[in-house]
Amino acid sequence: MKGESWVRGGLFITIEGGEGAGKTTLIARLTERIYTETKRRTVRTREPGGSPIAEAIRGVILDTKNTKMDPRTEALLYAAARRQHLVEIVMPALQRGNIVICDRFVDSSLVYQGYARGLGVDQVWDINRFATEDCMPSLTLYLDIEPEVGLARIADNKHREVNRLDLEGLAFHRKVREGYLQIAAKFPERIRTLDANQEPARLADEAWLLVKKSLG
Amino acid sequence: MKGESWVRGGLFITIEGGEGAGKTTLIARLTERIYTETKRRTVRTREPGGSPIAEAIRGVILDTKNTKMDPRTEALLYAAARRQHLVEIVMPALQRGNIVICDRFVDSSLVYQGYARGLGVDQVWDINRFATEDCMPSLTLYLDIEPEVGLARIADNKHREVNRLDLEGLAFHRKVREGYLQIAAKFPERIRTLDANQEPARLADEAWLLVKKSLG
Repeated sequence: MKGESWVRGGLFITIEGGEGAGKTTLIARLTERIYTETKRRTVRTREPGGSPIAEAIRGVILDTKNTKMDPRTEALLYAAARRQHLVEIVMPALQRGNIVICDRFVDSSLVYQGYARGLGVDQVWDINRFATEDCMPSLTLYLDIEPEVGLARIADNKHREVNRLDLEGLAFHRKVREGYLQIAAKFPERIRTLDANQEPARLADEAWLLVKKSLG
Repeated sequence: MKGESWVRGGLFITIEGGEGAGKTTLIARLTERIYTETKRRTVRTREPGGSPIAEAIRGVILDTKNTKMDPRTEALLYAAARRQHLVEIVMPALQRGNIVICDRFVDSSLVYQGYARGLGVDQVWDINRFATEDCMPSLTLYLDIEPEVGLARIADNKHREVNRLDLEGLAFHRKVREGYLQIAAKFPERIRTLDANQEPARLADEAWLLVKKSLG
């Protein structure tokens, strides 16, 4: 498995952003738009996403009994689950020539664990390079929004399950945004920043224009 | 947690070697000898060794249902279990001033996964540095023996449980030995090679002399 050679025909897109940025809505609209415009089917996924091994690993991470989990253990487990999901789900879909949209990927680890939790972006990047063998998305859409606005959206949405990260303080979410902006500046070719304050329809329009360019 | 500063007072020793090299016997004799000579208690351990999180991770690795596990996933899971065992078991014992003898550690991953399975020693070393934060043993005893001899010993020992590695072919075990000899040459200060063809009592004598030197 070696990066680009495997993705010929397929297109690997990841969506990133803080809580309440609108990733789920964008992915739904973008998938529809891609189908309308190109008649191509999109595989929508998120880690651990249907890989039984990756799900077992995630089970260990999320087990509430495991309160003593060290942050480095957690980072290694996320990288392990990512590897397995990539090999079992993402790669085969790309090989079949599909467009794959993945909700969060390596950048989430860089930002949440490397930057916001302080493990170091470069160090978390190293273990994720081991996990991905440089099979990285061709395009990453980062949905940028002020944490206050994103968190207020979540609070309004009664249908959304509250997760562990929602419960972190505002200072943490501000760090997450800072981290994303730094990573986006570091990889300007791959990561495109979208203003997530926009109307969902306009956001999807902007996203589609970028995807269209990547589809060549 | 930063390497040497944590181990003041304690001493971290690891024992390495192929199948049938005599690690278990040596550890028992060495522990006794250390107590006789110094009246110091030794904490004997092996990964995942009593850390519930590390054991849960090992459960995922060894689950026979997980036949599709990618070698990189496996390497990341071993590093994750190692991290947790280090933080929960090894570090606290060293901080209490104990001598800790661990049956296999980072070198096993370098040799079995990095070298013999072909993932690359340097790459496996990188993820293990992330896991250990350079908290490495002060002394590693590598028990060197020809694989034919080691495997014959195992075959003679009816009480020993057969594990997955025992069932690998001779070519694999030869690669393991090659790997150990290379790693030992790479870290001559830390890794001391002992001839495991010797009588157990003489082997323990040699090992004790090295431990004594490390105890200063």
